[in-house]
Amino acid sequence: MESPKNPSRRDFIQKSSIAGAAALFTSPLQGFASADQVEEASAASKINPEKPIKTKAYAAMDDSGVLKPWSFERRALGDNDILIEVKFASICHSDIHQEKGHWGPQQYPHVPGHEIVGVVAAVGKNVSKFKVGDRAGVGCMVDSCMECDSCTHGEEQFCERGQTVYTYGSPMPAEPSGISQGGYSNTMVVRDHFAVHIPDHISFEKAAPLLCAGITTYSPLMKARFNIGDKVGVVGIGGLGHLAVKLAVSKGAELYAFTTSAAKIEDVKSWGAKEVIVVDETFRSLAAYSKTLDYMICTIPYQFNAAPYVACVKPDGYFTYVGMPEGFQINLSNIALAATRVNFNASLIGGIPETQEVLHYCADNGVMPEIEIISADQINEAWDKVVNKEARYRYVIDASTF
Amino acid sequence: MESPKNPSRRDFIQKSSIAGAAALFTSPLQGFASADQVEEASAASKINPEKPIKTKAYAAMDDSGVLKPWSFERRALGDNDILIEVKFASICHSDIHQEKGHWGPQQYPHVPGHEIVGVVAAVGKNVSKFKVGDRAGVGCMVDSCMECDSCTHGEEQFCERGQTVYTYGSPMPAEPSGISQGGYSNTMVVRDHFAVHIPDHISFEKAAPLLCAGITTYSPLMKARFNIGDKVGVVGIGGLGHLAVKLAVSKGAELYAFTTSAAKIEDVKSWGAKEVIVVDETFRSLAAYSKTLDYMICTIPYQFNAAPYVACVKPDGYFTYVGMPEGFQINLSNIALAATRVNFNASLIGGIPETQEVLHYCADNGVMPEIEIISADQINEAWDKVVNKEARYRYVIDASTF
Repeated sequence: MESPKNPSRRDFIQKSSIAGAAALFTSPLQGFASADQVEEASAASKINPEKPIKTKAYAAMDDSGVLKPWSFERRALGDNDILIEVKFASICHSDIHQEKGHWGPQQYPHVPGHEIVGVVAAVGKNVSKFKVGDRAGVGCMVDSCMECDSCTHGEEQFCERGQTVYTYGSPMPAEPSGISQGGYSNTMVVRDHFAVHIPDHISFEKAAPLLCAGITTYSPLMKARFNIGDKVGVVGIGGLGHLAVKLAVSKGAELYAFTTSAAKIEDVKSWGAKEVIVVDETFRSLAAYSKTLDYMICTIPYQFNAAPYVACVKPDGYFTYVGMPEGFQINLSNIALAATRVNFNASLIGGIPETQEVLHYCADNGVMPEIEIISADQINEAWDKVVNKEARYRYVIDASTF
Repeated sequence: MESPKNPSRRDFIQKSSIAGAAALFTSPLQGFASADQVEEASAASKINPEKPIKTKAYAAMDDSGVLKPWSFERRALGDNDILIEVKFASICHSDIHQEKGHWGPQQYPHVPGHEIVGVVAAVGKNVSKFKVGDRAGVGCMVDSCMECDSCTHGEEQFCERGQTVYTYGSPMPAEPSGISQGGYSNTMVVRDHFAVHIPDHISFEKAAPLLCAGITTYSPLMKARFNIGDKVGVVGIGGLGHLAVKLAVSKGAELYAFTTSAAKIEDVKSWGAKEVIVVDETFRSLAAYSKTLDYMICTIPYQFNAAPYVACVKPDGYFTYVGMPEGFQINLSNIALAATRVNFNASLIGGIPETQEVLHYCADNGVMPEIEIISADQINEAWDKVVNKEARYRYVIDASTF
C-alpha cells in the first residue's frame, strides 16, 4: 500500500495548464490580479509537480532571529495535495518566537510563515476541493490524522492522535528537509483539506493575516457567545489584537481595547472601540475597569502579569489568552485568580471549517486587517519592528520578491 | 462617634453568667460536653470581657515554622463581638505556609489557626445571633466592611473595599498586637457575623475542619453544578481533598481521586471513590483519564505541574484550583491549556452563609472529616507530618492543652 502522500503516484496529477492560466485571466479575481500575478501564474505553470518543487524562500539558519534567502525543495505533489503559487505571506509574532527557539529547539534551515495566500498551480489526482487557478490560503496546519473525532469534526488542531502537523517546523518525513516548511516562500505544497478558499471579494494581501491572526481571535470570540452590546475587552493591539477589535465590534460588542502604546489610540477608536485604555507598568489605568467586562481576550505575545487584566472581567466571566509567549508560561497567581472568580482559558487557532468561515465573514462584512506590504529583503527589519511594537498592524510579504 | 468595636463601650456587654453555664448543662450539646468542657466553660465565665482577654496560645515567633507557647491579650469584647472559649482548633496547610512566610512576610508573634470551634462565653450588647452557651465556629475571616455588594450578599471574602480581615495575620488595629490572631489558643473574640453555629449533631472536633477545608471544597463543588453520576476528579487527598471526596460522593458524583500516596488508596475507596489513581513524577497514570472527567478540583498545596491534571477534564469543562502554594504560583503552560480547552479557575474559601450551610450539610448527611486529636505540645510534630503527607487527614488540637 502506498500512502496517499507517496510522491511515486503522480501519474494523474492535474498539471497547471494553459487552460488553467486562461481561467485565471477571466475569473472574478481579475480585479485583484495584477499583471505581476498573472505573469507569476504563468511561471508556475512551468513547474513540474511530479518532481520535488524548487522553492525560493527566506529561512532562519539558527536561533539568531535573522532570516536569509534560501532555496530548497518541497515534496513533489501527492495525490491529495495542491501546489500553491504563493502571492503573499504575512508575519506573525509566532514566527519570531519559534525561529528564535522561544518555544523549544528548532531544526534549521527553517522557513517560517503560516499566513499564506496564492493561486493553485496544480492539484493531485484525488483533489476535488480545488482546481487550478483557484485562490487558496494556508494557515497554521498542513496535516493531521483526519480520522479521529476531533479531525472529523473540524478541529484538526486537536487531533487526538497527536498528528497535527503545523505549517513549519513539525516533523514531516515526506518533505525533503524532514520538517514542514512555511510560507515565506514562492511555493507551497499542502494537503487539500488544509487549504481554504479565498473569497473573491477580498484581496490576497488582506486575506493573508486572517489565516492565523483572524482565526485565532475569531474562534474564541465566537465561543464566548457574547451578546450584542456586551462589554468585550481586547488586550494587546497588534496583529491579532487589532483583528480581535474589528471582529468583536463587527459582532456587536461594546469594545474596550487595552494597549501599552498610546500612539495606537486614534487607530483603535477609528475601528469602533468605545474606549482605548493605555496601560503602563503600574496597571493603575485598569482599576476603573475592575469587574466591568463580560469577556476579555488577550493577545499579548510575551510574558506579562495577567492578574490585573483578569480582574477587569466580571465574576464568573471568561478570559481567553491567545498570545503564546516565551516558554508558553502563564504568569498568574492563584489567589489573584480566586479573587476575580474568572474562568481563565486559552485557545489555539481554529479548525479548518472555522478558518474558512472567518474568511467568508471578513470578506462579507468588510472586516479587514491593517497591513503594510514589504519585500522579502525587508523581513528582518519588519521582525524587529514587530518585537518593538512598531508594526501597524501586519506586515505582508510580497512573495514575488523571494 | 465611637466605632461599634470600640472597647470603651462595654457597659452593656452580656457577660457569661451562672445562668449561662447552667444553660450549657441542660442544652442539647450535653451529649458532646465532656466534664472537662463544662469545667472550661465555668472557667471562661470568670473572664472579664470588658478588659483585654488573656489568652494562652501557640505562636510562630519567626518564619522558622516552629511554634512556641505564647500568652497574649485579645481585644476586650466589642458591642458586636462574641467571646468564644475555644474547644478545638485544627491544622490547615495554609497555617504552615503563612507562618513560614511563603505568602509574604509576616508580623510575629503570630498565632495561626482558622478552623476554630468552642462555646460562646460572652456576647456584646448588640449581639442577637449568639447567646452564651451556644456552640460556635470561626473560619478564615473575622471582619469585613459589611456594606458593599459582596459583603451584603454573603461573599465577605470578596469585600469590594478590600476590608476582609483574615483570621490571623491581617492588620487589625483593635487587637493589642495590631494583627488578627488565630485559633491555636484557648479564647477567640470575633464579630458575631463571622461566627457560625455548630449544629448539635456534629461533635466540636469533627466540625472544626469544616470551617476551612470543608467550605473551601464545598463552595466550588456546588458552583460546578455537576449532575448525579457525573465524573468528578479530586487531586490531592489531604485535609481539603479528603473532604472534597466525601462531599462530592455525598452529592452523587462518580469520584476519581488522584494522589501521590499509594498508602491512601484503601481509605479513599472506603469513602466511596470509584477509582483512586496514584500519580508519580512521570504522570503516566493520568494518560488513561485524558478528557474523561466532567469536573476536577485540585487541592495540592505546593507548586506542581497542573497541565497533566487539567488534561483529564473534558473539553469545555472546568478545573478549580483551591490549593494555595508558595508564592501562589500557578504552573501551567498556555499551549497546554489551549490544547485541553478547559476553563481553569480558582476558589477562595466561601462566604459566611455558605460556611453555615456546609456545617448543616455535613452534620445532616454524616459527611465527617477524618481527624486525629492532638495536644498543643504536638503541634510542631503535626506540622512536619502535614508537610510530609503523613496526616490522616486533619490534626485537631485540643484547646484545653494550651
